[in-house]
Amino acid sequence: MNADKVPDIIVGRLPIYLRALQRMAEKGMTTTSSQELGEHVGISAAQIRKDISQFGEFGKQGTGYPISFLIDKLREILKVNRLWDVAVIGAGELGHALSNFQGFTDRGFRIVMLFDNDPSKIGKSIGEFVIEDSSNMVERICNANVKIAMLTVPAAAAQATADKLVQAGVRAILNYAPISLNVPNTVRVQYIDPATHLQRMTYYL
Amino acid sequence: MNADKVPDIIVGRLPIYLRALQRMAEKGMTTTSSQELGEHVGISAAQIRKDISQFGEFGKQGTGYPISFLIDKLREILKVNRLWDVAVIGAGELGHALSNFQGFTDRGFRIVMLFDNDPSKIGKSIGEFVIEDSSNMVERICNANVKIAMLTVPAAAAQATADKLVQAGVRAILNYAPISLNVPNTVRVQYIDPATHLQRMTYYL
Repeated sequence: MNADKVPDIIVGRLPIYLRALQRMAEKGMTTTSSQELGEHVGISAAQIRKDISQFGEFGKQGTGYPISFLIDKLREILKVNRLWDVAVIGAGELGHALSNFQGFTDRGFRIVMLFDNDPSKIGKSIGEFVIEDSSNMVERICNANVKIAMLTVPAAAAQATADKLVQAGVRAILNYAPISLNVPNTVRVQYIDPATHLQRMTYYL
Repeated sequence: MNADKVPDIIVGRLPIYLRALQRMAEKGMTTTSSQELGEHVGISAAQIRKDISQFGEFGKQGTGYPISFLIDKLREILKVNRLWDVAVIGAGELGHALSNFQGFTDRGFRIVMLFDNDPSKIGKSIGEFVIEDSSNMVERICNANVKIAMLTVPAAAAQATADKLVQAGVRAILNYAPISLNVPNTVRVQYIDPATHLQRMTYYL
């Protein structure tokens, strides 16, 4: 199992499988088939078997997958069998919503700090967080050894902020600013931009 | 140019190109090359030329692409050379943030209604919207001929709500609930789930 050898498109489907399996487990289910999992996630059974077999043999022909075992394996493969500290940059409405979101911890993530450059926001509390001055961001993130950040600053500030995150040692950026980021190839970026997702659908309307 | 003939993976890159071109235009640029565009979006020049050529000849060898012309063409192809009405279902923090987000209209979308089932929220205002009772959702969406919805309800309520949206004639759902939806194949779904995006990156850490 070599991280570089598995196509990223397959890696991208694993969190979808994990999410569906966790919901099955919550419902009390103990085993599932690639057929059944496929119906849940809208991906063919053959594709699921092929994807999962990249990482080993996790099910027996005819008896399907033991759900909790497969969950453990996927969490291990995706390295979310631990809690990752996450910094949120930008305490606007979205940063606010993310900081209060309760659904991260059971999926491997814990927001630990929140930054903004607006003097009227710095020092204020959002839930359990005090908004910190982003001028201290590099030092704080570096000292706390935080490797993951969510970027919710305006587009115009996103690249400069990303540069600072890279400088601070961040290796994975979830970018909500509607702009493509240039980062070294040792840093990964994922994008969340609702307008982009909507435009991908209007094409078909 | 047949919508069914262009692979969805290519369709998915067009909004990224459009976004980058719009930022170039804002900066006063008038022409670009596939090389330059590629550096902005992190996609190879060859891939960009191949993707765009699916829809016709929009640039001349050696002189590059006229930016405003290519923007117009991409907006036409993606059908965002108009404003689409959008309904938001779920007036929690995320629905709140989306309703106040100013970045949709110049990309083809206008939020026109916002629903929740919580009696303590119904009738309250968020910006220019009054939160409506979701028990009227099907009728309201159907009568207003709204074809696009953003779903920000809890996971446990998402499938039932999606079923109602389909019943109301919605053809495109941007789903923020962390669950895969089953919808007829005449309806498209795109997913935004930050934990899924984060897990796709931790794999490489």
